[in-house]
Amino acid sequence: MPPSLLRVPTPAAWVEAAVGSRELLLIDHANCEKKAASTALSLMFAYAEDLELAQRLSRLAREELRHYEQVAKLIAQLGIVPRRLGPGRYAERLRRLVARAEPAREVDLLVAGAFIEARSCERFEALAPAIGAPLDAFFRGLCEAESRHHRLYLDLARRAGARAGIDVDARIDAFATLESELISAPDEVFRFHSGPPAARGSAEAH
Amino acid sequence: MPPSLLRVPTPAAWVEAAVGSRELLLIDHANCEKKAASTALSLMFAYAEDLELAQRLSRLAREELRHYEQVAKLIAQLGIVPRRLGPGRYAERLRRLVARAEPAREVDLLVAGAFIEARSCERFEALAPAIGAPLDAFFRGLCEAESRHHRLYLDLARRAGARAGIDVDARIDAFATLESELISAPDEVFRFHSGPPAARGSAEAH
Repeated sequence: MPPSLLRVPTPAAWVEAAVGSRELLLIDHANCEKKAASTALSLMFAYAEDLELAQRLSRLAREELRHYEQVAKLIAQLGIVPRRLGPGRYAERLRRLVARAEPAREVDLLVAGAFIEARSCERFEALAPAIGAPLDAFFRGLCEAESRHHRLYLDLARRAGARAGIDVDARIDAFATLESELISAPDEVFRFHSGPPAARGSAEAH
Repeated sequence: MPPSLLRVPTPAAWVEAAVGSRELLLIDHANCEKKAASTALSLMFAYAEDLELAQRLSRLAREELRHYEQVAKLIAQLGIVPRRLGPGRYAERLRRLVARAEPAREVDLLVAGAFIEARSCERFEALAPAIGAPLDAFFRGLCEAESRHHRLYLDLARRAGARAGIDVDARIDAFATLESELISAPDEVFRFHSGPPAARGSAEAH
């Protein structure tokens, strides 16, 4: 079941584009797993004094790296040639909503992390029935992990918010509004977290 | 047995300083494990098309993160309060020797990685008989892992060197010279990879 943070489901047009761009999907998926590990590590550096946060994010980063290894193995097995992709708009636009000053920044970074993981889970679930073997079973397993990760980020956000007297629900609300726009509005570039394709055929052009 | 890349053993004065600065040692050690994971991840991003390199470094990064979790647990158990430390000179000075342009850069980054892991192994082995329980057994186990990691980096360096026609032994030689200077010359700051303390008492001042 898609995490309750999300206001809109993945558009059918995105799923259709993804099924037709399996190579691009997997290459970007591998990227996303690396970025997820990297984001967790950067939080471990930024809040180094918080051992509980660091311990929990370290375990999360290890799990993302294991997923990376699994996707990389599939990429090799399917004969896909990895290549470098430019970034999509999703993570970049979410990051722009993050407060610059602490303690609001920490809460925002954790809330943004929760949304990215929640959307990943929802996308894997939407892809599974459409994508065919061997990816369907793999994606179903990943959804379970991403759902756990979204709860972990949310839990850390609420803990940081409580400590700093920040209204975390108001921040969740702000991120939910932006996130649903990014998922619903036509997107020029196809990526794991992109919106529906802006124009027919553009999905594979980037 | 200390990896053969290293030309000089850890000075006895450093071991003495480390035993007297157990808190600082562990806080910096936790940092080093995070940085080791972060370095591996940055190589995975820089050479994203090389799936074999990425797969091997991803497993290495996961192991470094597990070590981080183990050190963080020890820090908490020993009642040590984590704090932020400025960087030492070791990694920064090794980095300055890294070529700016590819393909030499990749070989150098991997050779530098091999030295850092080799020295870590050698330091854990030098510390084990002096540091007392519970750290001695922990450090002996880490030495085995770091020794494996140093061989992995060396192997990847030789592979990248062979592909690009670079004389890897000459680069190992250049790094070995600098590395032994950094380990032997008096150091103002005490860190896991620092030289012997520059002046009595300064080891705990930073």
